[in-house]
Amino acid sequence: MAKPSIPQGMRDFGPETVRKRNYIFSIIRNTFELYGFQPLETPAMEQLETLMGKYGDEGDKLMFKVLNNGLNDPKNVEKSRIAFDQVLTGKSDKNLTERALKYDLTIPFARYVAMNAGLLSFPFKRYQIQPVWRADRPQKGRYREFYQCDADIVGSRSLLNELELALIYTEVLSKLKLNGFRVLVNNRKVLKGIIEVCGLEEWEKKVLVIIDKTDKIGIEGVRTEMQNEAIPTDKVHRLIKIYSYDGDNLAKINFLRDLFGESVEGMAGLDELEQLILDFATFNPESAALQIDLTLARGLDYYTGIIFEARAPGQVKIGSIGGGGRYDDLTGLFGVPDIPGVGISFGVDRIYDVLEELNLFPTDVHKGTNVLFYNLGKEESRLAFRLMQNLRIAGISCEIYHEEAKFDKQFKYAERKKIPFAVIIGEQELASETVIIRDLGRREQEVLGTEGFASGAKAFMAPRL
Amino acid sequence: MAKPSIPQGMRDFGPETVRKRNYIFSIIRNTFELYGFQPLETPAMEQLETLMGKYGDEGDKLMFKVLNNGLNDPKNVEKSRIAFDQVLTGKSDKNLTERALKYDLTIPFARYVAMNAGLLSFPFKRYQIQPVWRADRPQKGRYREFYQCDADIVGSRSLLNELELALIYTEVLSKLKLNGFRVLVNNRKVLKGIIEVCGLEEWEKKVLVIIDKTDKIGIEGVRTEMQNEAIPTDKVHRLIKIYSYDGDNLAKINFLRDLFGESVEGMAGLDELEQLILDFATFNPESAALQIDLTLARGLDYYTGIIFEARAPGQVKIGSIGGGGRYDDLTGLFGVPDIPGVGISFGVDRIYDVLEELNLFPTDVHKGTNVLFYNLGKEESRLAFRLMQNLRIAGISCEIYHEEAKFDKQFKYAERKKIPFAVIIGEQELASETVIIRDLGRREQEVLGTEGFASGAKAFMAPRL
Repeated sequence: MAKPSIPQGMRDFGPETVRKRNYIFSIIRNTFELYGFQPLETPAMEQLETLMGKYGDEGDKLMFKVLNNGLNDPKNVEKSRIAFDQVLTGKSDKNLTERALKYDLTIPFARYVAMNAGLLSFPFKRYQIQPVWRADRPQKGRYREFYQCDADIVGSRSLLNELELALIYTEVLSKLKLNGFRVLVNNRKVLKGIIEVCGLEEWEKKVLVIIDKTDKIGIEGVRTEMQNEAIPTDKVHRLIKIYSYDGDNLAKINFLRDLFGESVEGMAGLDELEQLILDFATFNPESAALQIDLTLARGLDYYTGIIFEARAPGQVKIGSIGGGGRYDDLTGLFGVPDIPGVGISFGVDRIYDVLEELNLFPTDVHKGTNVLFYNLGKEESRLAFRLMQNLRIAGISCEIYHEEAKFDKQFKYAERKKIPFAVIIGEQELASETVIIRDLGRREQEVLGTEGFASGAKAFMAPRL
Repeated sequence: MAKPSIPQGMRDFGPETVRKRNYIFSIIRNTFELYGFQPLETPAMEQLETLMGKYGDEGDKLMFKVLNNGLNDPKNVEKSRIAFDQVLTGKSDKNLTERALKYDLTIPFARYVAMNAGLLSFPFKRYQIQPVWRADRPQKGRYREFYQCDADIVGSRSLLNELELALIYTEVLSKLKLNGFRVLVNNRKVLKGIIEVCGLEEWEKKVLVIIDKTDKIGIEGVRTEMQNEAIPTDKVHRLIKIYSYDGDNLAKINFLRDLFGESVEGMAGLDELEQLILDFATFNPESAALQIDLTLARGLDYYTGIIFEARAPGQVKIGSIGGGGRYDDLTGLFGVPDIPGVGISFGVDRIYDVLEELNLFPTDVHKGTNVLFYNLGKEESRLAFRLMQNLRIAGISCEIYHEEAKFDKQFKYAERKKIPFAVIIGEQELASETVIIRDLGRREQEVLGTEGFASGAKAFMAPRL
């Protein structure tokens, strides 16, 4: 039998990793709930037609498609063969594959809202914490199966939603003790305004893609790439001048207001940014964390208003740990128009790597079993088992060593599993109706009576439980 | 745009359903942890070769296989075509599909243990709560995506493990208030003994399959099916006589002991059952819940010792809500022999249906947002937002209505979302620096000062929070 393996780009999560990941999930989940978001879960698979064409050509290619069952059923063989020929020309075909694994949480959410629009009460605030799958080339920090944690409000145009989402970003990242994080904010309308006043409408998409890379290629890189696209030099120059402006949030807004005289959309975008910045400062002590970044564009076509990106503290080279923004008509893709929305996402796998690098996981996050009961003989272990059940009823997680074994072997088991306490019942204890409880880390112990053992044990462990 | 749909046999879980499911998951998870099991998660996909052939022909057919990416890449086209021809003959081929969605949690766990055997400390106790996928024909209570909740111990032959797993079943089902549940237990060795003393070795597999159906077809049905298999009448008669015996757990054991004189394996199986039954009675007040059922066989080939099945209370027609048993050499499939194990599983989707049918979900399981702050004007809502943030800091989940709207509309929103409390700040309250907090269910309210609002509000809500 060949040595078994795990698919490329995918991971097993052992106990310690699951606990650390749950620490992150629970902070995000609790914060979503505090802000009134309700949980939603959608299946791992969607109809292929729900997903195709929603993420650009690249997305279509990176989607994991699920083979239909029963392809070799005699009544299907001919259809299957024709369908496969289609696939070989790069098309998809329902007779070969009619389902795919979900690629993000947003499109399945839009599909859910479109299917249930008549039943939901709007605004509908949902959060969703589930894995998604992409057949990307695996590399450091990029996996083929990873979790997204999304919160969206649909059915509301109010800027209060953007305010709450910005507050959620800062609240979660503060609770994770990620000092120095930043939440970058921009507005697609402001980007439109900039494009307009520079006369770059013709090259809009290309320019947005280039601008979005500013933090990687620098402002001179932006100039070069624009020139490579054969954009007229005076227009490039105008854009570079705008992007060379430096100032705080309100200064940036005022600078652009002076330029935007003719651009109605640009002006509307600035008003929104200003209101968000001011409200945020009123309600959040960490107001410096919210920063206007005019280079922020976010790739996805469906954004139409304010956009967000959360960044790890500067010393960590990992880039974005979350993003989001406002969209006007996501469910329109599924035949239900006029449901505006806004949402954010946390990238848990990257947040995990950052917390690991900065050593920010709490020390007690590893804690699994609290107490190991030693197994030192038949009668001894019967008593141990009985006392153990009392501790379990009291909510304390326990194990009994599975067989009679030498003291040392049982101690090593506790040590490897980081079990902090041991309960030891040997021949002598059995005779005297006593029990030794030992703090394995501090090497301190106490003798307790079997009578009232649970309360005695709880009192002994309390300082370290 | 066509109306969107969800793949057949798969489900969206809206907020209320997620909360009910989480109620079940958290009871199972907490109990697993109390017994010292540690969390493990494996990817949704496994290498196809890891899964193929492990679940019989039927399993191979029902597996969801994932299409390789880049099939139409010019350098792959020829290989893809050949691979597809293989698939059309019912074979699988790595050049078309090298991954599949996991079909259960046991084989991926065995793969994990085999891959990490050198790093794990044994006995290794893990639990795993994740979805699995099967392309079964959807029907009531059977889905194509469903959750399994497994706990296994590997690296130990001790019967203490069986005892703990039986205790976990009764503890979880009692906490779920499923009064009248039963945990059936049998032993593959005892079944071997019965087969031996009836001289049925030649028909062993067929007989086990027939016996396993006794609760559906009755003892006369067993007789008929065995005769249909052309099994000699005297042997059938001997078996039926054994299966007609009725008595309590220990009576059954004694009855079989008298028969099993020659069968070493059968005798060993009876000793194990007896020890489990006696120990269980010592440590569990609900000892009547554990019942020997000699018809229990469990389909999977890998079981070798004690086997379990959990059953819903008799009035619910749903059959098994969990099962498990001991296996001797699961990781042997992956080239790492001699790691014995034992495990159990809970079927959460069925447990959900049972709790729903018996109306056993706690009434507060629905609770999402606790407080809705009314939005009654620009200044009013600014004050409301500020006070709301104080409640959120205190851990109380809140929402503010997203825009200024009529009183009634906001009340209806709270009602539809089952939000129990409202905070109302109108013109008058703004002027007098007061706040109305209202219990929407009881139609009681109180006027609080804005100063010290959070503690006043908490005191008001305490009886119903």
